[in-house]
Amino acid sequence: MIEAPLKPETKKMSGIIRLGFVELLVNDLSRASNFYSRILGLQETHQEDGRLFFKCWDEYDHHSVILKNGTGPGLVKLGWKVGSERDLEQLEQEIEKYGVPVKRISKSEEAAVGEALSFIAPSGQPMMLYADMDQPGKRIVPPDIIPEGLTGIAPLHLDHLVISAEDADEAVNFLTSVLGFRISEQILDPEGHAVASFLFRTNKAHDIAVVHGPAGRFHHLAFGLEDRSDVKRAAEIVSQHQQVEVPPSQHGITRGCTTYFRDSEGNRIETFAGGYMTYPDFPTITWSTEHMDRATFYFGGPTNPDMFMEWL
Amino acid sequence: MIEAPLKPETKKMSGIIRLGFVELLVNDLSRASNFYSRILGLQETHQEDGRLFFKCWDEYDHHSVILKNGTGPGLVKLGWKVGSERDLEQLEQEIEKYGVPVKRISKSEEAAVGEALSFIAPSGQPMMLYADMDQPGKRIVPPDIIPEGLTGIAPLHLDHLVISAEDADEAVNFLTSVLGFRISEQILDPEGHAVASFLFRTNKAHDIAVVHGPAGRFHHLAFGLEDRSDVKRAAEIVSQHQQVEVPPSQHGITRGCTTYFRDSEGNRIETFAGGYMTYPDFPTITWSTEHMDRATFYFGGPTNPDMFMEWL
Amino acid sequence: MIEAPLKPETKKMSGIIRLGFVELLVNDLSRASNFYSRILGLQETHQEDGRLFFKCWDEYDHHSVILKNGTGPGLVKLGWKVGSERDLEQLEQEIEKYGVPVKRISKSEEAAVGEALSFIAPSGQPMMLYADMDQPGKRIVPPDIIPEGLTGIAPLHLDHLVISAEDADEAVNFLTSVLGFRISEQILDPEGHAVASFLFRTNKAHDIAVVHGPAGRFHHLAFGLEDRSDVKRAAEIVSQHQQVEVPPSQHGITRGCTTYFRDSEGNRIETFAGGYMTYPDFPTITWSTEHMDRATFYFGGPTNPDMFMEWL
Amino acid sequence: MIEAPLKPETKKMSGIIRLGFVELLVNDLSRASNFYSRILGLQETHQEDGRLFFKCWDEYDHHSVILKNGTGPGLVKLGWKVGSERDLEQLEQEIEKYGVPVKRISKSEEAAVGEALSFIAPSGQPMMLYADMDQPGKRIVPPDIIPEGLTGIAPLHLDHLVISAEDADEAVNFLTSVLGFRISEQILDPEGHAVASFLFRTNKAHDIAVVHGPAGRFHHLAFGLEDRSDVKRAAEIVSQHQQVEVPPSQHGITRGCTTYFRDSEGNRIETFAGGYMTYPDFPTITWSTEHMDRATFYFGGPTNPDMFMEWL
Repeated sequence: MIEAPLKPETKKMSGIIRLGFVELLVNDLSRASNFYSRILGLQETHQEDGRLFFKCWDEYDHHSVILKNGTGPGLVKLGWKVGSERDLEQLEQEIEKYGVPVKRISKSEEAAVGEALSFIAPSGQPMMLYADMDQPGKRIVPPDIIPEGLTGIAPLHLDHLVISAEDADEAVNFLTSVLGFRISEQILDPEGHAVASFLFRTNKAHDIAVVHGPAGRFHHLAFGLEDRSDVKRAAEIVSQHQQVEVPPSQHGITRGCTTYFRDSEGNRIETFAGGYMTYPDFPTITWSTEHMDRATFYFGGPTNPDMFMEWL
Repeated sequence: MIEAPLKPETKKMSGIIRLGFVELLVNDLSRASNFYSRILGLQETHQEDGRLFFKCWDEYDHHSVILKNGTGPGLVKLGWKVGSERDLEQLEQEIEKYGVPVKRISKSEEAAVGEALSFIAPSGQPMMLYADMDQPGKRIVPPDIIPEGLTGIAPLHLDHLVISAEDADEAVNFLTSVLGFRISEQILDPEGHAVASFLFRTNKAHDIAVVHGPAGRFHHLAFGLEDRSDVKRAAEIVSQHQQVEVPPSQHGITRGCTTYFRDSEGNRIETFAGGYMTYPDFPTITWSTEHMDRATFYFGGPTNPDMFMEWL
Repeated sequence: MIEAPLKPETKKMSGIIRLGFVELLVNDLSRASNFYSRILGLQETHQEDGRLFFKCWDEYDHHSVILKNGTGPGLVKLGWKVGSERDLEQLEQEIEKYGVPVKRISKSEEAAVGEALSFIAPSGQPMMLYADMDQPGKRIVPPDIIPEGLTGIAPLHLDHLVISAEDADEAVNFLTSVLGFRISEQILDPEGHAVASFLFRTNKAHDIAVVHGPAGRFHHLAFGLEDRSDVKRAAEIVSQHQQVEVPPSQHGITRGCTTYFRDSEGNRIETFAGGYMTYPDFPTITWSTEHMDRATFYFGGPTNPDMFMEWL
Repeated sequence: MIEAPLKPETKKMSGIIRLGFVELLVNDLSRASNFYSRILGLQETHQEDGRLFFKCWDEYDHHSVILKNGTGPGLVKLGWKVGSERDLEQLEQEIEKYGVPVKRISKSEEAAVGEALSFIAPSGQPMMLYADMDQPGKRIVPPDIIPEGLTGIAPLHLDHLVISAEDADEAVNFLTSVLGFRISEQILDPEGHAVASFLFRTNKAHDIAVVHGPAGRFHHLAFGLEDRSDVKRAAEIVSQHQQVEVPPSQHGITRGCTTYFRDSEGNRIETFAGGYMTYPDFPTITWSTEHMDRATFYFGGPTNPDMFMEWL
């Protein structure tokens, strides 16, 4: 069968290119602002009524974290950046074809964001898709490569998010068949149902994970650090103010190094380094529930067993 | 303008997904075999007349390095893996449209590789494109995540390659407009011509770099390590047998940690860790030749200035 | 008051200069031999009837670990090296003055060891003091600095030992007033009695620790690694064979990085890196039992709370 | 021969216990103050006419660095702390017996220092010995172990000093036979004369080094960091303000990790991590001048060859 050449604009399409931002509920905006700028070490880029916007120093888009005044902790929504307007159009069609209603958001209705799509994933979390965001850049030019005066942990970028789903199989199906994610690793119960699935669109070990649990909730968001030694340093910085929730540890799944702690409002934050690379042809790794402990913390349980039951 | 929905198979397309393999010339296959398996710590996966095939432990495809008996050091060819047969078809059209002749290679004509395209890039290096390669996998299953008995440096994966081009601008144009690469960083001379360009298809800081120099040559191939401390360990292992060419250092461009050394045949090898993430919307960073030193080795020149003039 | 000049030999005296060796009980000498040489990565230096002798690669004395066939796990004895024969004489006097009987061991009665003293510390552990041991050296000469072909964890040196004492105050008193140790840190109960005391003769944060518990037992022996990243690598190596007992963690007391695991016979081993330097004028740091958790694992409890009750 | 028991006070003697402080000449005290507090990250503890005093956060004595207004760069003097007044008396006798005049300094003549000895070493550098210094402590109490708000490199402690001597053999003889140092490593010329000698009183690989060169000068002073990753971080912090003189590298001698840079006044500073442990029975390692390069920078020459000829 001979096929017609693809239209040029197809070459510009790349689907979802990264987890763009996460919006969280915080009870006290000023206390949270102090935590995110001084301890976590993000850069505040924008304020508006009841919301604060932050980015990591190595990100060039306008924001990757939004804090919203409200009854937290909790997830307001998350945003995926796509490669082009054409990607937006195609994804709009596919999401609606799947039976999920999509709302168009006009440019600047959401601060710094171009035209966007808004919908609620089958797992219950509000999601947004957009192709454009203002780009203040990294504010650092050659021959400098690292900004001066970083404070706190100063992660490189927003890395991934873990959400819950009442029907994890269906949540994964939506993410793979509609949004184009692939599965790097999964924990299956003896009946073959997903207990936890780790999904990627980039070359990271995961951009999002879905775990069986209540609808519409999240477990943690993670920021990327460069090196394992930075994970320990992150725990040191947090420990000067509060106890970390999980000391520097090693995941079996993803092979990432990790430490978990709460922000001042109770939202759970992971800082993460390492983890293998994935590609579209990555062969999914499957764990049985029997090895859940080692999948979670490879060297053994550094935490209370209930931590992974506690959804925000 | 209303556009027709994309055909389903378009969704499977992802263009080039990674640098798949590099084939090198070696003068003494058995001496080289010892270097690649004992010191570099790759896994030999195949032998055929005059050629040895290797993979890194964290790779699941059949091979990422081929050593070929001949007058080395030198580059025989490099291979890019694409997402699907449909990608192959589209790239075949585009390469030919650019004016570069393409030869179809039938399945298994190249060991372990499916149907493939063969062509010589405008910069003079033979390249191959393929969508399928046998996948022996990582040979490690949960709950284990790291294989036992690794020897030598044992890098995770083939990371990138640096090639030379008489006309670097044209070489970059081919890689971007035809093969779909984007530029993360570049050094431009005062007239705005490319002296060195760093290009990515994945989320790494670079998958290939092109530097102004003689046609058809290469400077080094690089293997990825997990952590900065692994780069120092790599230099320690090499130093027990020979002097490294560049001690553990820090690039300005890509922000990667690095050490360079030669294989037993004179091919230059880098081991690399770190480096920022890129995405399709990454804003290219441009250096002037004035800051060449810091671009190359951010903390200062740990090497002889001629090293970057010496092409293999 | 004018004092006479010190006799020349006094200048040669330096008291105890390091923890020289630890002798452990193992049930299966051949199985233990495999663990200590392949997984822990020590060098076997001597065999005699029912005993195996090992040293770390960076040690120059004949041995630092002895494995003895018997009903293990358990401690047979530990040895302290002193600076000179004159130190032996003085310590012999002082130990006997304290009321502890001392037995002279003649040269070579203990393999590779010169004339020695043998006694049982008030805390119940047999100890030996000696000024001479055969020195095979490090078996590596300039310009090489790291031996080739190290296997397993390959620690640098025996680092410290933790023992129990029914009366920890008295055990510490003997170590400080007779053997010349100083206290770097201590955990005191509300009545001011020692729960745990960390003592040093070198510039390390501790060479031995004494914890309230049964008479004559030990908790673990520790080997020194160079860097925090080596502690994680140690846990990786162990995890390919068995679960570690404590994943890579951070002590509050001593500030050392640590991972604990059992040898094949059940003896508990720590690998340790970091920790501050001490000097004879180091001001003792005192913790209350209220902060026991943070004193033990600074970032939080990575282990079962009973681990520190389990004496070997 | 029966000897009389040693007098009790002898047991308190320990000779020189550490390099206590280094006093440097700086041209601009306020500019230097900024460098030492903001970039190097020391804590200012005292000011007096024309002098500033600093300590590292992990030191408990009053100061380890003094900056003195004058024509720098250059060394004013260095101070060794001894274990007791009795050590001072004995060392006073021995230094004078060697033929070096000693001056008694009364308490508080030197800020924060008790009664002291002052003399000029045969190699030409003014030295001071003292048993007492005010101890403000580390200003951190359990359960905290790391102070909040550290800025800049924030090294743990003053580590060592490298000085020059016209007659290195004699300089070493004084340090060993009178001050009680031992030699860990040495580079000997073909006639067996010392080109460079590395000496220790603590368990570090060196506390001072003597290199053949002009009388009375110094090459650099070094501060200790905890970990190899901290050395790279130090270079990153310096590189935001100025070029480092030697990028993060690895010494052959001492096995330490290192980076060198200048303070704002031209005094050369090293930050140092790692390095093996020594003991009084450490077998001296001897290098020939043939391996000078590898002795200096084990992985190869990351610097201009003249750097080690340039004395301050």
